[in-house]
Amino acid sequence: MLSDEQQIRGVIATWMRATLQGDHQTVLDLMTEDVLFLTPGNEPMHKADFAAAQSSMQGVALGGTSEIEEIEILSDWAYVRSRLRITVTPPGGTSIHRAGRTLTIFKKDAGRWRLHRDANLLTRQSTEP
Amino acid sequence: MLSDEQQIRGVIATWMRATLQGDHQTVLDLMTEDVLFLTPGNEPMHKADFAAAQSSMQGVALGGTSEIEEIEILSDWAYVRSRLRITVTPPGGTSIHRAGRTLTIFKKDAGRWRLHRDANLLTRQSTEP
Repeated sequence: MLSDEQQIRGVIATWMRATLQGDHQTVLDLMTEDVLFLTPGNEPMHKADFAAAQSSMQGVALGGTSEIEEIEILSDWAYVRSRLRITVTPPGGTSIHRAGRTLTIFKKDAGRWRLHRDANLLTRQSTEP
Repeated sequence: MLSDEQQIRGVIATWMRATLQGDHQTVLDLMTEDVLFLTPGNEPMHKADFAAAQSSMQGVALGGTSEIEEIEILSDWAYVRSRLRITVTPPGGTSIHRAGRTLTIFKKDAGRWRLHRDANLLTRQSTEP
């Protein structure tokens, strides 16, 4: 039996692996139906917006690492602070590096931890971070 | 007796009012000792960093509004999603407008709600938002 923290670390590891592999459905299953993604300069994104953004990434190569800096479990809720580094390479294009922190709220939903709110503070880097 | 939600709304209202008035100590009293502020492109700021940033704002006129879009209470924790609009005017200078969302974790600390983690996604606006 995995602890809540182990389960949340598992969700984050699966999220990263599935994202890098382009396994869109697995990522969508790791978020609540009413998830919201907050990013600088944009309106909050809903699950359907996230799915549309995934579809627009066909052929784009993704690389990256996620380092968990803090996990706090609050019964059926948790918050996680992470340091994320992402490299996006369009087909035949130049790689774009992005890095920064995320602050994420996870919610235990019918016994499964899912991502519920995500503040993504990544900014573009001039070199690989 | 105020509900937890009313108390948190009170903390946010006091925070905004004290910030706009330059009442630095009141703002510092509304955060936990181990608070962290996350912003795009910067390392997480600690309480001492926040106090130093306050001191550097002497003579700067601040305006702004905060609109709470979501409050979720999780026992002695809460998260709040807000829409923030800030105008910063240096002495004799041109006003800078910033707007966007915040995702904030509050913690009930010896019976008092205090700000504990804050992700600030504001970006510069070309016109008053």
